[in-house]
Amino acid sequence: MHILIIGTAGMIGRKLANRLAQDGNLGGKVIAELTLVDVVEPESPTGFSGAISVLIANLSAPHAARDLISRRPDVIFHLAAIVSGEAEANFDKGYEINLDGTRQLFDAIYAQGIILTQGKSSPYKPRLIFTSSIAVYGAPFPEQIDDEFFQTPLTSYGTQKAICELLLADYSRRGFFDGIGIRLPTICIRPGKPNKAASGFFSNILREPLAGQEAVLPVSEDVRHWFTSPRSAIGFLIHAANLDLARVGPRRNLNMPGISATVGEEIEALRRFAGEKAVKLIRREKNDVIERIVAGWPSNFDTERARRLGFEAEISFDHIVKVHIEDELGGKL
Amino acid sequence: MHILIIGTAGMIGRKLANRLAQDGNLGGKVIAELTLVDVVEPESPTGFSGAISVLIANLSAPHAARDLISRRPDVIFHLAAIVSGEAEANFDKGYEINLDGTRQLFDAIYAQGIILTQGKSSPYKPRLIFTSSIAVYGAPFPEQIDDEFFQTPLTSYGTQKAICELLLADYSRRGFFDGIGIRLPTICIRPGKPNKAASGFFSNILREPLAGQEAVLPVSEDVRHWFTSPRSAIGFLIHAANLDLARVGPRRNLNMPGISATVGEEIEALRRFAGEKAVKLIRREKNDVIERIVAGWPSNFDTERARRLGFEAEISFDHIVKVHIEDELGGKL
Repeated sequence: MHILIIGTAGMIGRKLANRLAQDGNLGGKVIAELTLVDVVEPESPTGFSGAISVLIANLSAPHAARDLISRRPDVIFHLAAIVSGEAEANFDKGYEINLDGTRQLFDAIYAQGIILTQGKSSPYKPRLIFTSSIAVYGAPFPEQIDDEFFQTPLTSYGTQKAICELLLADYSRRGFFDGIGIRLPTICIRPGKPNKAASGFFSNILREPLAGQEAVLPVSEDVRHWFTSPRSAIGFLIHAANLDLARVGPRRNLNMPGISATVGEEIEALRRFAGEKAVKLIRREKNDVIERIVAGWPSNFDTERARRLGFEAEISFDHIVKVHIEDELGGKL
Repeated sequence: MHILIIGTAGMIGRKLANRLAQDGNLGGKVIAELTLVDVVEPESPTGFSGAISVLIANLSAPHAARDLISRRPDVIFHLAAIVSGEAEANFDKGYEINLDGTRQLFDAIYAQGIILTQGKSSPYKPRLIFTSSIAVYGAPFPEQIDDEFFQTPLTSYGTQKAICELLLADYSRRGFFDGIGIRLPTICIRPGKPNKAASGFFSNILREPLAGQEAVLPVSEDVRHWFTSPRSAIGFLIHAANLDLARVGPRRNLNMPGISATVGEEIEALRRFAGEKAVKLIRREKNDVIERIVAGWPSNFDTERARRLGFEAEISFDHIVKVHIEDELGGKL
């Protein structure tokens, strides 16, 4: 089995590559080859017995998608995108990377199927897993967003993700590939350094105090949001790759399970693991801009379909903190 | 005021051009110029005192959109599309015309705004009215589809319309144009000759008997569908052109009001206007293919938003038949 990961240099891509390298198989099939792609050179995982190709490519460049697909991967994880803030700041670049790049990938798969069918080779119909986002939703929301709530994004990033979801469903319905789109909750606790993303503080206020460092909280404690751990996110991707898509039917884009929690609930979990000393490292510094941005984000979902299809996530914030301590801090504080 | 109609050779485009030519103004502003465009030469309306340009152009051809927009129309009605059946039969052509053509139009408006702003001319921000379709929905449906039900099209045509809606909302949010998308119900009674569209019989079984001709009914009488008259459809377009979009907000794509009626209810209306003799002209000829296609279409909506925004349609099937008699048959049978 040959697996292609597009967007391997990001946090999720790196973790996914490591997990696949470590497992050595996907759904019981041995992984013979991993192709890892990004616009900058991704890290190569260690301990993998198959072949690894590391490639630098930008999907929106001419022929990039065609070249990748000509190698006929069996499973494609498409994680590559520029983030929300950048897509909003740079309209043209956002559409070029997030929409045109994805469509070129989809069209390359479609074309590969035609070429090989006419040449009497075996047909080509890979599994394609696409990471979408809860940014496909735009306020105002019901108290809990269910699986049939409509997509009215309020950012260009969310628009681009929603469009790619529609293409994915249609190309899958046409039989060009077996696509599934998964809308990830905000990943928490995001490992690494604090970053300037508007959502960064949700992780910062836990990760930094757990490591004895100060963190800034720019919103009030009653702000609610929708979370899952990095470990669960990787679990969703693997599950989506193995899932019987006949069970999913034509509605191929799914809200992933997560936890709806307030900042106050995050802080209580921190207190239980690391005590009052850690909580005192959170410095309150109100930021109206961030508070306004966050108020436009969805904060609570009823993900019945995904749960019925076997997607699993943490069920408490304590569990999310525990996963971070196990996966990033070697199991202890 | 300069008005551009793209897709003027179709039934709706022709009626809209005639109505605007007859009114001579839109929202109280005198129409100085009408530009009528289609891939085949559209009819020119008579009795208009302003300037009329009739152009043959295909939006998906290079520069076609740019050339049209360089003339800076104040209001743009974008009605052009290839129909559902053709978009399904020809995957590439459907995406090229219905998606790429529309995006090129939107991008031409965006580019026109940039060019003129940098050149210190007045900025360009036209009103854009886009005809979408209830094909953005895919079965299974709730008994009545409300304004917040999600879009999961089951045809490439529906997918293309849903994508254009998302682009329209984002380009409007960005301030490139003032866009509004309206999802038209099935138009009934469609004037002209019977055609081979799967939905054709909904009109055929009324129009033909009203003119003393036979018509074929391929489904059972309990089949339910969602209708509006050609006159209402033109009314929606005019209302959308005049509407204060601040009232609409960022959710720019609206289900238009209509009537949910069964084939049996259509036939009862026919009986009331034209008697048993007319009803006897309907020949029952079951067609499983058509019955299956129609079963996948939405048949009932709660269009609260559109009604609150002042969009108006018939409230009984008798009214739909009456409109046909008035507008197409000179007021009498």
